[in-house]
Amino acid sequence: MAKSKFEYVKSFETEDKLLPNCWIVVRVDGKSFHKFSEKHEFQKPNDMRALDLMNRSAVKVMEQYKDIVIAYGESDEYSFVLRKDTEIFNRRGFKIMTYINSLFTSSYVFYWKQYFKEVKLKSPPYFDARIVLYPTDENIRDYLSWRQADCHVNNLYNTTFWALVIKGGLSNIEAEKRLCGTFSSDKNEILFSEFNTNYNNEPEIFRKGTILLRKRIKKPNSEHFKRVIVPLHEDLIGEKFWNTHSEVLSIKPGQDYYFNDTLPDLVKCQLCINTKRNYDEKNNLKEAE
Amino acid sequence: MAKSKFEYVKSFETEDKLLPNCWIVVRVDGKSFHKFSEKHEFQKPNDMRALDLMNRSAVKVMEQYKDIVIAYGESDEYSFVLRKDTEIFNRRGFKIMTYINSLFTSSYVFYWKQYFKEVKLKSPPYFDARIVLYPTDENIRDYLSWRQADCHVNNLYNTTFWALVIKGGLSNIEAEKRLCGTFSSDKNEILFSEFNTNYNNEPEIFRKGTILLRKRIKKPNSEHFKRVIVPLHEDLIGEKFWNTHSEVLSIKPGQDYYFNDTLPDLVKCQLCINTKRNYDEKNNLKEAE
Amino acid sequence: MAKSKFEYVKSFETEDKLLPNCWIVVRVDGKSFHKFSEKHEFQKPNDMRALDLMNRSAVKVMEQYKDIVIAYGESDEYSFVLRKDTEIFNRRGFKIMTYINSLFTSSYVFYWKQYFKEVKLKSPPYFDARIVLYPTDENIRDYLSWRQADCHVNNLYNTTFWALVIKGGLSNIEAEKRLCGTFSSDKNEILFSEFNTNYNNEPEIFRKGTILLRKRIKKPNSEHFKRVIVPLHEDLIGEKFWNTHSEVLSIKPGQDYYFNDTLPDLVKCQLCINTKRNYDEKNNLKEAE
Amino acid sequence: MAKSKFEYVKSFETEDKLLPNCWIVVRVDGKSFHKFSEKHEFQKPNDMRALDLMNRSAVKVMEQYKDIVIAYGESDEYSFVLRKDTEIFNRRGFKIMTYINSLFTSSYVFYWKQYFKEVKLKSPPYFDARIVLYPTDENIRDYLSWRQADCHVNNLYNTTFWALVIKGGLSNIEAEKRLCGTFSSDKNEILFSEFNTNYNNEPEIFRKGTILLRKRIKKPNSEHFKRVIVPLHEDLIGEKFWNTHSEVLSIKPGQDYYFNDTLPDLVKCQLCINTKRNYDEKNNLKEAE
Repeated sequence: MAKSKFEYVKSFETEDKLLPNCWIVVRVDGKSFHKFSEKHEFQKPNDMRALDLMNRSAVKVMEQYKDIVIAYGESDEYSFVLRKDTEIFNRRGFKIMTYINSLFTSSYVFYWKQYFKEVKLKSPPYFDARIVLYPTDENIRDYLSWRQADCHVNNLYNTTFWALVIKGGLSNIEAEKRLCGTFSSDKNEILFSEFNTNYNNEPEIFRKGTILLRKRIKKPNSEHFKRVIVPLHEDLIGEKFWNTHSEVLSIKPGQDYYFNDTLPDLVKCQLCINTKRNYDEKNNLKEAE
Repeated sequence: MAKSKFEYVKSFETEDKLLPNCWIVVRVDGKSFHKFSEKHEFQKPNDMRALDLMNRSAVKVMEQYKDIVIAYGESDEYSFVLRKDTEIFNRRGFKIMTYINSLFTSSYVFYWKQYFKEVKLKSPPYFDARIVLYPTDENIRDYLSWRQADCHVNNLYNTTFWALVIKGGLSNIEAEKRLCGTFSSDKNEILFSEFNTNYNNEPEIFRKGTILLRKRIKKPNSEHFKRVIVPLHEDLIGEKFWNTHSEVLSIKPGQDYYFNDTLPDLVKCQLCINTKRNYDEKNNLKEAE
Repeated sequence: MAKSKFEYVKSFETEDKLLPNCWIVVRVDGKSFHKFSEKHEFQKPNDMRALDLMNRSAVKVMEQYKDIVIAYGESDEYSFVLRKDTEIFNRRGFKIMTYINSLFTSSYVFYWKQYFKEVKLKSPPYFDARIVLYPTDENIRDYLSWRQADCHVNNLYNTTFWALVIKGGLSNIEAEKRLCGTFSSDKNEILFSEFNTNYNNEPEIFRKGTILLRKRIKKPNSEHFKRVIVPLHEDLIGEKFWNTHSEVLSIKPGQDYYFNDTLPDLVKCQLCINTKRNYDEKNNLKEAE
Repeated sequence: MAKSKFEYVKSFETEDKLLPNCWIVVRVDGKSFHKFSEKHEFQKPNDMRALDLMNRSAVKVMEQYKDIVIAYGESDEYSFVLRKDTEIFNRRGFKIMTYINSLFTSSYVFYWKQYFKEVKLKSPPYFDARIVLYPTDENIRDYLSWRQADCHVNNLYNTTFWALVIKGGLSNIEAEKRLCGTFSSDKNEILFSEFNTNYNNEPEIFRKGTILLRKRIKKPNSEHFKRVIVPLHEDLIGEKFWNTHSEVLSIKPGQDYYFNDTLPDLVKCQLCINTKRNYDEKNNLKEAE
């Protein structure tokens, strides 16, 4: 078999090594999820099952790729941030991007039943991915802030839109017209005066999206630490988040990626209240303890 | 919300428009499928369920992306060839590569049960992808020949290896040692003299892999044409294949991608014998007619 | 000296290997040559000294880099076409582009005095460069046609513009206004009716630019062949040029790049009439024989 | 003229926008300068005329491109560092690289006579260029340190080699053998014990190369400031250089690129001793005042 005769075609592949010493972001984004969410009757404006499934899939990716130090998800997109000094796959961008995207996709289908129960998956959902480099800590913070600001803008719009449609009885087109040209303050006002809704009291997971961090936390009534991937739903645009979780941007090569977190509110609130969305590294998915 | 303040980060994304007028290949490749196949007890040396699932997933990709004119799969990899003149996603390489990879992955999990029945999927399988350009028809033919030659070399090795292990009672290490340094002729001889196996009589899908083409075929006893994606398991290194399916490399913009195929052996053999692996564009999967 | 401590910075350099089996074009283009030509009082609309200097510099580049099979120049730009199969500098695009650009620039300054005689060079002229790939013969022909069409359009404009200014006494702004919105036919008419000029009788070097080819030609009254780089000023958009010089696109690896040319008109016309612009590989510049 | 028919070829050009917020280095490097220096009988181990010509050419480049904040040259190479936030040529890498390379080359030929006087330039010298990104201040400092360490290693070798050849009477091959496997300390010892030369007393321009900075300096006996490009020949690996010239890495958008420098030793030493190598922005070359 004249194998060697054809092997020259391998030389047509391009090298795609990423610039060293830059934060690497891989963002996956649902393909036609507007249609997909209608087909599967997602709740509007937000479907907790869908968000939990997105988060579960992202956790799977973080479990597999330890060089991801933080992830941020909203709606049908998720961003994964890899350490500046990662040498994973020799920093070949195609490999990094396609593995993360494929594992995320695979997990989305794999875990579907766990969240959507009797709702049958009707067709294979899929995602595109892009890979972007950010040279400085300021840049990567601004990137994450950009996505969280996007989450806010979209969620405020969607919350008002669906209030007008579901509670207000407007058609989709009427609701769209009503909101055309409005500012944030206008939408807040519509929600408050017409639907008795204070937007700021909406669930934080809707308004802030989900941040995934690695932590070592103490289980309640136990001496032992446990490595978990913790979902947070809070502001990451201000300084407070980065002061509290200062390890994210300052992690050193060879260091344990999981950090003690002794903040009582985190330990208590997250572990107790959000326990279903705490993900244990070992046991795949930690159901309510 | 100071959205605009952060939006500058979008400018860090890179343009990745592919050179026009080149064949585009996207090849997806299983991540650690050796381990994955063991965990799910794939039959050795080839598991028909796994091959059918790969083919089914590839068909799903071809159904979605009409600019794929031919696909070729073997083992845990699949190559998709897009028309030279495709303008899909404005020829942005990241988009093309990640959509195809993600849809393939998603389909693999989605259709798993259809082929593996009671065998439960234990973890989300995933795939990397690469994208490569080939300027000429000769280059793209050589690319496909390269993969088919690879299929042959691997399958001959695996067939002999597993014969030695399963039928010959050797341990994996003993079989590996036995085959170390052998030529194709040696392996053929081992199969023939020791296991009474003529390698050339092994199923063509194992020896040649699977070629997916778009065809309009006449259903038996019907006047109507039907657009299908046809799986072929034959040699594509020689001239014969390309003479028979000359449309693959000569398709014109705006042309119907499906070509009449009146070759009786194709109509008969493929439709009758391989019918379960003929895929109908409309009805997702066409089970035995 | 802790050399190794710093050497890691080399890893930040990017690989830039060009796709194999494509025609490679390097186009150099004068930086602010409008201003440069005014400063050095170039004749309008065309300065033969400047064109000859451009051609001489391009010949120097072709002498140095044998994988250039054809070059085309007009105004302050020059395009160099390298064989599809060239392995020069391992097809690293930066190397190819910057060497050609730098040698062209260097030659322009080096040979200045030879053409501009007593006109002193007042400041260092310089050029940018770009590198572009063309997969097929049709693409590379279209590329060259594009540049020659550009030459025609610009030269017809400039010829008319400067006729209006120099012979017609219009100011630059008046001439510009006069030509605004005119078609080729209008400009031809202005030249003919107002300045008694038949544009088609203008020198071909102005209307067609300069094509550089490698040829082996017989010197008049001699038995010996000589390798020269021949400047042609003729149409390359039509078929005739490519039929006459069919070797350009069909050169094979290892072949002598210089082709016998027995066309009597070429031998006679070029060697006798344009002799000053025939360039001998060995003796740098072959002055009138 | 069917111009539009061909214009599609422009779409084959690639976008090459550089990642924002990174230091940009363009390094030009002489092509076959070993041979070129022999042909023009450069003095060994260093030829002051050649170094001055390199520096003069680099100054020309810095005069033209204000976003270059520092340049470093040694032997036949020069590195230009552009501000992290430069938007020059819309950060298109090809443009930046080829303009700098071409202007440097052009200047080298243009100013040749000024330094080499009666020594005629025999052939056009030329340079390649590469462009590299460095995300952090530490990286760009390490890059410059890498080049200065290279300067030291090469110069110590060359100084010893040519001492052995010119003063010691060894042939080139004998000198090469003698130095094979030696350490820095060995070469220092050879110079000291055999040629009565203390390497540390060699001219700093040879041992440290040339750093070009923009400064506003007070002319002796004058109240006026003057913007100049100052050549320094000192260590830039240690902290001292960067403390003294802290503006280089901290320049802000819109700021005047020239900084007051009141260090008396600089004003005095540079202006008085090295005066011929101080370059005045306006008057091209400021000869001894």
